Amino acid sequence: MTSPKKVVLAYSGGLDTSIILKWLATEYGCEVVTFTADLGQGEELEPARKKAELLGINPDSIYIEDLREEFVRDFVFPMFRANAVYEGLYLLGTSIARPLIAKRLVEIAQATGADAIAHGATGKGNDQVRFELSAYALDPSIRVIAPWREWDLTSRTKLLQFAEENQIPIAKDKRGEAPFSVDANLLHTSSEGKVLEDPAEEAPAYVYQRTVAPEDAPDTPTYVEIGFEKGDAVSIDGERLSPAALLTRLNELGGANGVGRLDLVENRFVGMKSRGVYETPGGTVLLVAHRGIEQITLDRGAGHLKDELMPRYAELIYNGFWFSPEREMLQALIDKSQEHVEGTVRVKLYKGSADVVGRSSPASLYSESHVTFEDDAGAYDQKDAAGFIKINALRLKLLAARNKRIAD
Amino acid sequence: MTSPKKVVLAYSGGLDTSIILKWLATEYGCEVVTFTADLGQGEELEPARKKAELLGINPDSIYIEDLREEFVRDFVFPMFRANAVYEGLYLLGTSIARPLIAKRLVEIAQATGADAIAHGATGKGNDQVRFELSAYALDPSIRVIAPWREWDLTSRTKLLQFAEENQIPIAKDKRGEAPFSVDANLLHTSSEGKVLEDPAEEAPAYVYQRTVAPEDAPDTPTYVEIGFEKGDAVSIDGERLSPAALLTRLNELGGANGVGRLDLVENRFVGMKSRGVYETPGGTVLLVAHRGIEQITLDRGAGHLKDELMPRYAELIYNGFWFSPEREMLQALIDKSQEHVEGTVRVKLYKGSADVVGRSSPASLYSESHVTFEDDAGAYDQKDAAGFIKINALRLKLLAARNKRIAD
Amino acid sequence: MTSPKKVVLAYSGGLDTSIILKWLATEYGCEVVTFTADLGQGEELEPARKKAELLGINPDSIYIEDLREEFVRDFVFPMFRANAVYEGLYLLGTSIARPLIAKRLVEIAQATGADAIAHGATGKGNDQVRFELSAYALDPSIRVIAPWREWDLTSRTKLLQFAEENQIPIAKDKRGEAPFSVDANLLHTSSEGKVLEDPAEEAPAYVYQRTVAPEDAPDTPTYVEIGFEKGDAVSIDGERLSPAALLTRLNELGGANGVGRLDLVENRFVGMKSRGVYETPGGTVLLVAHRGIEQITLDRGAGHLKDELMPRYAELIYNGFWFSPEREMLQALIDKSQEHVEGTVRVKLYKGSADVVGRSSPASLYSESHVTFEDDAGAYDQKDAAGFIKINALRLKLLAARNKRIAD
Amino acid sequence: MTSPKKVVLAYSGGLDTSIILKWLATEYGCEVVTFTADLGQGEELEPARKKAELLGINPDSIYIEDLREEFVRDFVFPMFRANAVYEGLYLLGTSIARPLIAKRLVEIAQATGADAIAHGATGKGNDQVRFELSAYALDPSIRVIAPWREWDLTSRTKLLQFAEENQIPIAKDKRGEAPFSVDANLLHTSSEGKVLEDPAEEAPAYVYQRTVAPEDAPDTPTYVEIGFEKGDAVSIDGERLSPAALLTRLNELGGANGVGRLDLVENRFVGMKSRGVYETPGGTVLLVAHRGIEQITLDRGAGHLKDELMPRYAELIYNGFWFSPEREMLQALIDKSQEHVEGTVRVKLYKGSADVVGRSSPASLYSESHVTFEDDAGAYDQKDAAGFIKINALRLKLLAARNKRIAD
Repeated sequence: MTSPKKVVLAYSGGLDTSIILKWLATEYGCEVVTFTADLGQGEELEPARKKAELLGINPDSIYIEDLREEFVRDFVFPMFRANAVYEGLYLLGTSIARPLIAKRLVEIAQATGADAIAHGATGKGNDQVRFELSAYALDPSIRVIAPWREWDLTSRTKLLQFAEENQIPIAKDKRGEAPFSVDANLLHTSSEGKVLEDPAEEAPAYVYQRTVAPEDAPDTPTYVEIGFEKGDAVSIDGERLSPAALLTRLNELGGANGVGRLDLVENRFVGMKSRGVYETPGGTVLLVAHRGIEQITLDRGAGHLKDELMPRYAELIYNGFWFSPEREMLQALIDKSQEHVEGTVRVKLYKGSADVVGRSSPASLYSESHVTFEDDAGAYDQKDAAGFIKINALRLKLLAARNKRIAD
Repeated sequence: MTSPKKVVLAYSGGLDTSIILKWLATEYGCEVVTFTADLGQGEELEPARKKAELLGINPDSIYIEDLREEFVRDFVFPMFRANAVYEGLYLLGTSIARPLIAKRLVEIAQATGADAIAHGATGKGNDQVRFELSAYALDPSIRVIAPWREWDLTSRTKLLQFAEENQIPIAKDKRGEAPFSVDANLLHTSSEGKVLEDPAEEAPAYVYQRTVAPEDAPDTPTYVEIGFEKGDAVSIDGERLSPAALLTRLNELGGANGVGRLDLVENRFVGMKSRGVYETPGGTVLLVAHRGIEQITLDRGAGHLKDELMPRYAELIYNGFWFSPEREMLQALIDKSQEHVEGTVRVKLYKGSADVVGRSSPASLYSESHVTFEDDAGAYDQKDAAGFIKINALRLKLLAARNKRIAD
Repeated sequence: MTSPKKVVLAYSGGLDTSIILKWLATEYGCEVVTFTADLGQGEELEPARKKAELLGINPDSIYIEDLREEFVRDFVFPMFRANAVYEGLYLLGTSIARPLIAKRLVEIAQATGADAIAHGATGKGNDQVRFELSAYALDPSIRVIAPWREWDLTSRTKLLQFAEENQIPIAKDKRGEAPFSVDANLLHTSSEGKVLEDPAEEAPAYVYQRTVAPEDAPDTPTYVEIGFEKGDAVSIDGERLSPAALLTRLNELGGANGVGRLDLVENRFVGMKSRGVYETPGGTVLLVAHRGIEQITLDRGAGHLKDELMPRYAELIYNGFWFSPEREMLQALIDKSQEHVEGTVRVKLYKGSADVVGRSSPASLYSESHVTFEDDAGAYDQKDAAGFIKINALRLKLLAARNKRIAD
Repeated sequence: MTSPKKVVLAYSGGLDTSIILKWLATEYGCEVVTFTADLGQGEELEPARKKAELLGINPDSIYIEDLREEFVRDFVFPMFRANAVYEGLYLLGTSIARPLIAKRLVEIAQATGADAIAHGATGKGNDQVRFELSAYALDPSIRVIAPWREWDLTSRTKLLQFAEENQIPIAKDKRGEAPFSVDANLLHTSSEGKVLEDPAEEAPAYVYQRTVAPEDAPDTPTYVEIGFEKGDAVSIDGERLSPAALLTRLNELGGANGVGRLDLVENRFVGMKSRGVYETPGGTVLLVAHRGIEQITLDRGAGHLKDELMPRYAELIYNGFWFSPEREMLQALIDKSQEHVEGTVRVKLYKGSADVVGRSSPASLYSESHVTFEDDAGAYDQKDAAGFIKINALRLKLLAARNKRIAD
């Protein structure tokens, strides 16, 4: 295969992607464009610019973008309309960020005339799949370079040696190996590897970065009211906020109350199990609240259909198929259900828990007159239930009679 | 329709079912057999016997049974193998008890030559459906009498008047109306109605009966180790326990730590939304732990299939179709998956939360050698991932190319 | 319950609905509005007008409408986008017509100030459910009268006596009982009852009305080319046709070749099994052709998701839930997939069979360069397949190794 | 990677696998064991033995087995219990044979101490996946060699040259290239490639090998009665037959009547679309008949659940996951439903069509007394239907009222 001429690299500014930057230039003799995005990971981006410049990247070829609003509005919120959780528990914080990064990589490649993109995900994980499926779905002629699958820098020693040989600055604390690996964005932090590799061992306290321990959270509960429109959160305690601002606020509230920690062994798309520790404070509150508002505004048929399809939808996102026809079809189905998912949910946060304690909506389907133990003024005729049961039972009775007949 | 000659009544010993007892005798002139079961609701059963005798039931016609072990072993545990939750949250504590009661009612009817059974569920709820579908599925010729759908005792005043006219003792605290209605068994308590009817209002503290408030729970976490075999819990902290003893212990542990409270607006099978407050302390711990042991012992394909079918399975139980071919088919599928769901899970209980912090199993599928960031000694060839992604991407690339072609 | 003041009756002009017309006037003393629709059942409508007038209906209260285009465009075609078949075989010809009739009944009720609608479906069938669920979903305050469930005209003799007493003309051939019951519209004919009640007996030849027997069809095949746009058929043999005109033409072509007969025992929503004989000549050709065009234009992920959800979608239509949130959600999902389902399919019709023999499309996803046994010029790297398989196998290998380990 | 020492080759005796045989010996210097199975492909096996001997294989290392009964009993029949069709049409004739071949390859490898197996499937198709996933699932340590993905014999010329250099006899008609490629077993024949590569062109008549053209089939129908027990066919026209004998007979009957031809464009697991022409005469009759017997013996809930899961089940088989936990779980579910799928179905075969015309069963769930238009002697109370509909409508009415309220 011929060498690429110009490569857009997903660049964090850290040691690993700096090594990739140099390796691409060395290995392929190609021009490198860097792309660094603020997805809410909580790091300054300007150092990445400086470092890219230091490593010889032309200032015109350094793309630094704040994607937080797009991330929450077009990726996180649509996903939360589905109440998506992977394997019953994981809120898909890393999974949902990858398609957006891939989308911008491809767009920048098209804008700059690059013929390839590159990322720093390893060959054992899900992220390589998410980056690459997204990229190919958006531009079938793009080439994707995944150095970790290609190069022979297979040990820490070799990596550091390559860095030194290529004048890549190495922060002191990067000399030794990190005790675990981290990914972060506005939705969550993810930690895995090393000290977390034995799933029988409780995760050490220092793994957590965004949430206080429940034991250290306030002794009195915090109450928060979240407003919804068309299935998306739009306000907190009456204050209208942009998507990213809202999630930021929920992260603060959730994090301060120890909400959103998860210790999980999950199944990777590439076939092995891995253990991750996640912190999704705002997302956890959001999920709880969204279910709360759906409870009073969503029809049963709509809700059950969503619930049945959710695992598939979550799996598609986890596996990297955000930009696939089937995810888009499911999204159309989900979005169709959310038109009147509106109103306000009151959530109690306390030492690790987030619980709905009240919900109200102008579009409520809850009818006290139907459910009441008191006289309902004819809203519901209990005798109808007798017919309902009889007809539902008919096939079961025919079956029981048949089984008795042939057993005799 | 002719009158039944002998009716087996699900009899709690309380005022309402005592009224039903007398009403059946009065209305139909039929003999009444009472059936009172200990499902772990936490009430003495002997007073029910005395009361039945007082109301004129022949001692031979009073059935009082401890069904706790059967309940947990044959109903609760099979359900928990599926990680069943209704509408994302409800652990089905009431739903799963009804089929067992119906089964015994039908069996006692057959044993005593009764031609009908009767229950005290109202015409607005799910329980009538669950009792009756179960009964018809087990005996297609049985007749079911649901007095609440038939009689004209439509107000508290009329009920009390009927009680007085029929020498039914009325406890002092039953003169006024209860502030809410309760169902309880070894799996949960359920509270609904009256003070809980406005879903915007937080449930008052006095509703909760089996769990302390998280705020009142101990300031230090409790750790518990649960052992599993074939998907069922078999031990706590190394001590082997019978199903009912195990669930009892988990209820104590969970309840003391404020675990398992749920405030929910749910969709009833009969079409309206209702608000319930549930306490399922032991069940909540069990669900969390079962997911934990599945994380390391269940294959991905098996787990995802279970997750996709779970909402349907839960809906069937909620709607009263425990004794249906489709529930039994799903059970066969689920049970097939549980053969090696075995090992130990460590759960941390703390002020309302129950979280897995460790799991280990002789049948673990977790492979450190595959997942490690370190050298994996050839367990996994990262280059395989490239082909995996390319082939997965092929259809997406063909699609993108097609879409581009026809857009041009 | 008070009597309705004005009732809109689904009126065919036949004996049964004429009796209902008079019974409504007699029983309730209400005004009757008649609604007669041309859905392609193949009967003149003017006689229904004359008969309604004869029975005393005010000409302003007689609604006669040709709904064929709306029927095919807004009901049949959306359903065919899903390849909907009930229980593997039934093309839902009756089911899909009921919501449209109910919709017009409700609209006419609103336009004429009627407070009720009435239909002639019996209490044992699916149609009552379809009419009524549709009506209630469109107007929750409408009242529905189903005379067959209410009156005491429970025998043929009583019906004829009522007719005679009320000066309802009785056609000679209606004196005796019909050997089976028929429903027909542009999509199909349905026959059931009487001579068809024993499912072991082959349906007699005289049951079929719209298709020749395969044995009597031409000895040479007929080829037809059907053009599609956005998943809907738009042309036959190059001639653009309106939806109803197109289906009419396909009925002629299919019917002449003995295509579309079905002898089925199906499960009714009300719980019993029934045997029906259906003729859906044009619909059968359409289904075959639609699958044909999807084969080359629909992505695998999209197609498989549609296939998995189809049984549910078909069940919803069969059960009468056309106007439900969940049907509309599924429709949104299905429609999303059909954007580029376009092109031409060639179908061979021959003595009862309809088979796709060719398909072509400007939006084809079929790539000879990928699939060829010849040199593919690098379109596909066979070595990628090795990695694809290895990664797909990983979990199965880990599982097999685990099972071996614990068995040893 | 080191060379394997002994390889079990799936050997047909044809030119391609003979070349593989020699290539394995040459390339790896390994011992080769051949395995040739009679799966009903309609070829003599003894020539394969002679050819293997001629190519130098030790007679002890030549395995020739008649697997027809095992194939039908343990693979085809379980699959037909599910009514499995892939993408709505394909009866999975090739897919279902691969796991059995892989199973025997692995078992022979274990018996002979071989460390690898080899197959002749190409890198573009599904069969490589099916062979290899099956093998890895049965023996995680087995090595699989797929010469078509490895060697440089990438053209017909090179293959023939290799054959000549290695004294592999080349039949005259193998000098030129075949106009299409064929796979056959007792369930079906599959043809693809070359003359079939343009999906717009009708398949030429000479492609078909096992069925007469409908036009050439007898002018009078053939009727056949198929008996079922536990969901499996056990007899034809009253004669009890072994699984393979039964399918053979159905192939004759179907084939003579032009039944079971299919021209399909399908989606391969490896991502591209391909066009296949299939002949499944006996299988088509069997599918039709199995649906027929289920119509009267299977409960609605059971049948609908099966129908919804069938596409997934078929996809698993198509993709090669026969030996996977999820296929086994689905099989447990399906088998659970088949206990009373017993009785007799009468099928009419005529010029390409196979239609059920009658079904009867001692375990029938069809109840004339419930379905009849005549007086049903109280079997069904039509008034129950009113309540059934009202309760089913309740949520739709609440929804409509809500929507009206917020629109006003």
